[in-house]
Amino acid sequence: MTILDGKNVSNDIKDEIAAEVSKMKENGEKVPHLAAVIVGNDGASLTYVGSKVRACERVGFESTLIKLPNTVSEIELLDTIEELNQNDDIDGFIIQLPLPPQINTQEVLMAVDPDKDVDGFHPTNFGKMALDMSTFIPATPFGILELIDRYGVETKGKHTVVIGRSHIVGRPMSILMGRKGFPGNSTVTLTHSHTKNITQITSQADIIISALGVPNFLKAEMVKDDVVIIDVGITRVPDETRPRGYRITGDVDFENVSKKASFITPVPGGVGPMTIAMLLKNTLLARERHSKL
Amino acid sequence: MTILDGKNVSNDIKDEIAAEVSKMKENGEKVPHLAAVIVGNDGASLTYVGSKVRACERVGFESTLIKLPNTVSEIELLDTIEELNQNDDIDGFIIQLPLPPQINTQEVLMAVDPDKDVDGFHPTNFGKMALDMSTFIPATPFGILELIDRYGVETKGKHTVVIGRSHIVGRPMSILMGRKGFPGNSTVTLTHSHTKNITQITSQADIIISALGVPNFLKAEMVKDDVVIIDVGITRVPDETRPRGYRITGDVDFENVSKKASFITPVPGGVGPMTIAMLLKNTLLARERHSKL
Repeated sequence: MTILDGKNVSNDIKDEIAAEVSKMKENGEKVPHLAAVIVGNDGASLTYVGSKVRACERVGFESTLIKLPNTVSEIELLDTIEELNQNDDIDGFIIQLPLPPQINTQEVLMAVDPDKDVDGFHPTNFGKMALDMSTFIPATPFGILELIDRYGVETKGKHTVVIGRSHIVGRPMSILMGRKGFPGNSTVTLTHSHTKNITQITSQADIIISALGVPNFLKAEMVKDDVVIIDVGITRVPDETRPRGYRITGDVDFENVSKKASFITPVPGGVGPMTIAMLLKNTLLARERHSKL
Repeated sequence: MTILDGKNVSNDIKDEIAAEVSKMKENGEKVPHLAAVIVGNDGASLTYVGSKVRACERVGFESTLIKLPNTVSEIELLDTIEELNQNDDIDGFIIQLPLPPQINTQEVLMAVDPDKDVDGFHPTNFGKMALDMSTFIPATPFGILELIDRYGVETKGKHTVVIGRSHIVGRPMSILMGRKGFPGNSTVTLTHSHTKNITQITSQADIIISALGVPNFLKAEMVKDDVVIIDVGITRVPDETRPRGYRITGDVDFENVSKKASFITPVPGGVGPMTIAMLLKNTLLARERHSKL
């Protein structure tokens, strides 16, 4: 059994990006610049955005954090987005979700210039992904592909079962694993809340990607020997023995499933750390594309 | 066993659209206007475009057919598209495929205004579809959804197996059948040329949508009792007994599979006739949206 070590791989990726940025600086080129917009004071959102800004600093990117009050109007937010779209110094930017209820999230995400949409949430980028065109792949799915790639996990002709059909993980993963090329060429089954006999399906899977958000949902008796497990679940479970009063738990009963698996991601330290690394990677790609325009 | 009669249903849809157009005329409103661009003199393409124009006439739409020579340059074609984008009288238009080799098909399809893209091939529309937003669904998948809807075929919690991952049928169907709502909420497996043990997968399916293009690929021993069969295959098989020297054959061994099926589309007369009806429907939707702008 091999651990798919997202912490290690994401550090490798950050080191590679930092080396690229050093070269850019040596050549007197502009370095990538990521902006993040955050609305309000939600603790988890501030933590996530803070990690993204720190990651930018680590690899040598420029970063800009734009904080807007919780009471901001949709028009004011759209104005901010338009400024970022127009600002040639900004290569990519993200709008940290969730947004407060007075704002239509869909309208806001639609307003981001697809060429700066390093989260890959804009329909134009999502459509390009589904039509096998070059685009920004959303960071979490991109991170899963990268883990599979770096560990050389075979996907061609394998049966991949995706659990959960969210727009940011399950649905894009189901598309990506069935595309031509590597990673891809899998037979893909997408399962969700209406799926019957989930055990019958998971027990046939060569690869399981679980993005359900139900702690310890996937048990050893639901998988076959040598299965590959990608656990995208990150649920906070109360735990008084931890300093913060909770622990992060995945969808998979790691202790028992890992005994049958050929490859498995831990939680934490699996898919999670890959997400920020791939956001940086998308920002680097955005810079490279803009420099060619 | 119930035949999913696309010929009948498509006639119903055309009658419904014609009734809508009559109302528009009575109210002095502009009627929908579809334009079709065809490049070159390929016989099959001319036949398809001709059918589309005749269908417009039947329901009372205005139609414009733009014929360009096989030698047209990409820039000239893009100019034509830009004129159609700008022309307020045109509600929707299609570029008949395939295009000659000097033209980059992807560039051309990207140039169509998504609000006039009644084929639903633009990445923005494809992405909206995959993200559950309102959009133009490509005509063949839209026709399959409509057949399922009108015959009340249950899809929720069913296992749908899609055979073939083309951009115009297989991939969009795999997305649509797994979306929330009806038709949808299926557990969906997308299979393709790299799929192993296809029989093991099809024999578990409640619904099979085959868009492979291999005559009589799907045999009775590959399906379970009461399966629902949607056959999107249309292959010309040489047949000297027919006036044209060929017959149109689907992916499914209809004679034997139909004995086990609960619902099944014939070929011809199943999915085929639905495609043009749904192109008209998309054009009507385009007109309705434009009238609200």
